[in-house]
Amino acid sequence: MVQPGRTPLHVQLADIIRSQIESGVFNAGDQLPTEMELMKQHELSSSTVRQAVLALVGEGLLYRRAGKGTFVAKRPIGRDLLTFSGFSEEAVARGFRPGTKHVTVEWRSADAVVAAALNVPTDESVLTIERLRTIDDEVVAVEAVSFVAAIGLLMEKLDLADTSCTEILERQLGVALARARQEITAGVARAKLVKALDVSSGAAVLQIDRTAFDATDQVIYFSSSSYRADRYIYTGWIERKSASIAQPRQLIGGSR
Amino acid sequence: MVQPGRTPLHVQLADIIRSQIESGVFNAGDQLPTEMELMKQHELSSSTVRQAVLALVGEGLLYRRAGKGTFVAKRPIGRDLLTFSGFSEEAVARGFRPGTKHVTVEWRSADAVVAAALNVPTDESVLTIERLRTIDDEVVAVEAVSFVAAIGLLMEKLDLADTSCTEILERQLGVALARARQEITAGVARAKLVKALDVSSGAAVLQIDRTAFDATDQVIYFSSSSYRADRYIYTGWIERKSASIAQPRQLIGGSR
Repeated sequence: MVQPGRTPLHVQLADIIRSQIESGVFNAGDQLPTEMELMKQHELSSSTVRQAVLALVGEGLLYRRAGKGTFVAKRPIGRDLLTFSGFSEEAVARGFRPGTKHVTVEWRSADAVVAAALNVPTDESVLTIERLRTIDDEVVAVEAVSFVAAIGLLMEKLDLADTSCTEILERQLGVALARARQEITAGVARAKLVKALDVSSGAAVLQIDRTAFDATDQVIYFSSSSYRADRYIYTGWIERKSASIAQPRQLIGGSR
Repeated sequence: MVQPGRTPLHVQLADIIRSQIESGVFNAGDQLPTEMELMKQHELSSSTVRQAVLALVGEGLLYRRAGKGTFVAKRPIGRDLLTFSGFSEEAVARGFRPGTKHVTVEWRSADAVVAAALNVPTDESVLTIERLRTIDDEVVAVEAVSFVAAIGLLMEKLDLADTSCTEILERQLGVALARARQEITAGVARAKLVKALDVSSGAAVLQIDRTAFDATDQVIYFSSSSYRADRYIYTGWIERKSASIAQPRQLIGGSR
């Protein structure tokens, strides 16, 4: 319930609607109650309701269609910038249903990028798994993971069809994944990627390369993934290290 | 000098060439010595030299032109995924020369995104600084930073032409920047961005939104930046949190 107090009313209302979306009271594509209905329901002014709705439109949780009303957007699929987690486990943690399609498993000659990442000679044979990753049955990413031979020999014997590689590595093979080096950049979809991701040619994609190491600093795999940028967003909190160079002084709401 | 030992010779040679590039012995566009010259110089076999060069090509530090040789690539400008640092200070720390062009400073009505980030009503007046950011005189990013009114009133009195906002906030205004929420996604350049970044229409751009807070959790600014994806890459180490679910077992080089 919206109550007068320290938190502005429109912020409280936005919080309520946000939690209704998160808890599934409203789903993607659902129409939001009209401004009038929200005013009555929460006993708020039209300007407060409008402000709350606009804030949620700004966050991308809602979108407006002229003359039709306000609707719940497909939730962008967040990924944590700071945590080394697998595609599947992070999707589950965020309330999505992850899946896998079109798995190919084969030994390939490492190209220069893969060889450098896995620290093996170029052309060395590495086990590469290519998969389409889905969220709620929609393809959102194309991923190629290459394993060093010692791991690949164990992996290829397992059922890789619909299981998380992270889970296989940790639970079935007892690999203690410890850290990864991650590189994030942007690209555009062409040819193969257009088809796989079902996007227009030239659509933006997030490119994520990851080199994973175990607790003894042995490299385990190198993965290269392309995510639909219209569905994925990387988020995280970053801390200021050099805060010591500042001379803290209360500025906002201070007595200055 | 390359010496026999635990580290493979090609890795040692790659490390030497990498540090020669980093220290400026070789600059962007310079031709690398030929394979033969590198063999003589380091007393190594052709396959070792080739492997080292290919690894650096894979890393993007070198590129090859058929029939012409191997050249030093423009260094991609790395940014740390995990640290809250300003554009200028991070560029300087990485050995680049940052700069600023075409600064506009004005009070604007906060749109829904800015209002939500700064936690102010939509249409509230916020000071917005738009800048083109350069590295070694090349425009690499377009940035708009909006400040809450209390900070904006102080900022607008200062010379914002060629100074880092982070530095102004911390050193001149005594704001203790503490943490920021960062969102990274991909986009494509159109119209205004094409002109500002001097890229083709449809070129990939990295979109970075950042909401910065001080030590008392007051929001200080919201910035929205578009980086040339061909020049910028976000990198960082991520740690595995759930390592406890693994049953560690030495796998590679173990007695299994």
